[in-house]
Amino acid sequence: MLDSDLVAQHRQELRRGSTSLACLALLATTPDYGYNLLGRLAELGFEIEANTLYPLLRRLDKQGLLTFAWDTSDARPRKVYSTSPEGVELVALLREDWDRISQALHQIGQDS
Amino acid sequence: MLDSDLVAQHRQELRRGSTSLACLALLATTPDYGYNLLGRLAELGFEIEANTLYPLLRRLDKQGLLTFAWDTSDARPRKVYSTSPEGVELVALLREDWDRISQALHQIGQDS
Repeated sequence: MLDSDLVAQHRQELRRGSTSLACLALLATTPDYGYNLLGRLAELGFEIEANTLYPLLRRLDKQGLLTFAWDTSDARPRKVYSTSPEGVELVALLREDWDRISQALHQIGQDS
Repeated sequence: MLDSDLVAQHRQELRRGSTSLACLALLATTPDYGYNLLGRLAELGFEIEANTLYPLLRRLDKQGLLTFAWDTSDARPRKVYSTSPEGVELVALLREDWDRISQALHQIGQDS
C-alpha cells in the first residue's frame, strides 16, 4: 500500500518547478494580482495556497523574472505582477526542458 | 540578460521531481546497478551525477519504492535495484500528474 504522505511528497516535488514556470507564463500573457493569479492557477489544475504563492512571487521578483507596479485605484494598494523580458526568456528555456523531459519519460517503457 | 546560475537553478528545480519518476520507471522495466542506471538516464537526457543519484536511490529504497538484491557474482558485491509494486503504483500516479501539468502548461498562452 502506498503511503499517502509519501505520494503527496512526490507529487509536490514533481509540481514544484512547474509552478514557477506556470506563474511566469501566465503573468507574461496577462499581468495580475497575486490573488487573481491563484484563481488562474487553480483553473489550470495548479493547486497552490496563497501562503506558498506569495513568497514564490516575491522570490521571482527578487530574481528579476517578474516586475510589479502598484495599483492604487483601491483603498489598499496592490501589486500587479508581470513577467520581465528575462522571465519571458526563461519561460522559453524551461518549456523546452519540459518538452524534452516529457519525451524522455514517454520513451521509458517503450524501448528502455 | 538572464543570469546563468539562475537559469541552472530553475532548470534543476524543474527536473528534480522528474528524476525520481524516471528512475522508478526505468527500474520497473529492467532492474539495474546504480552505475548502469546513470548511463540509461544520460541516454534519455537526464544529466545526473553519481553523487546525486546514489542518495536518491537510497532514499527511494527507504521509502519502499525500490528494493534491491546483492549481486555477488563480482569480487565486490553490488546492489541491483528494482522498482517495488508501490513504486510501480507511484509511477502511474506521477505520470498522470505529469501529463496533466503538461496539458496545463500548453494551455497557457493559448487562451489564458
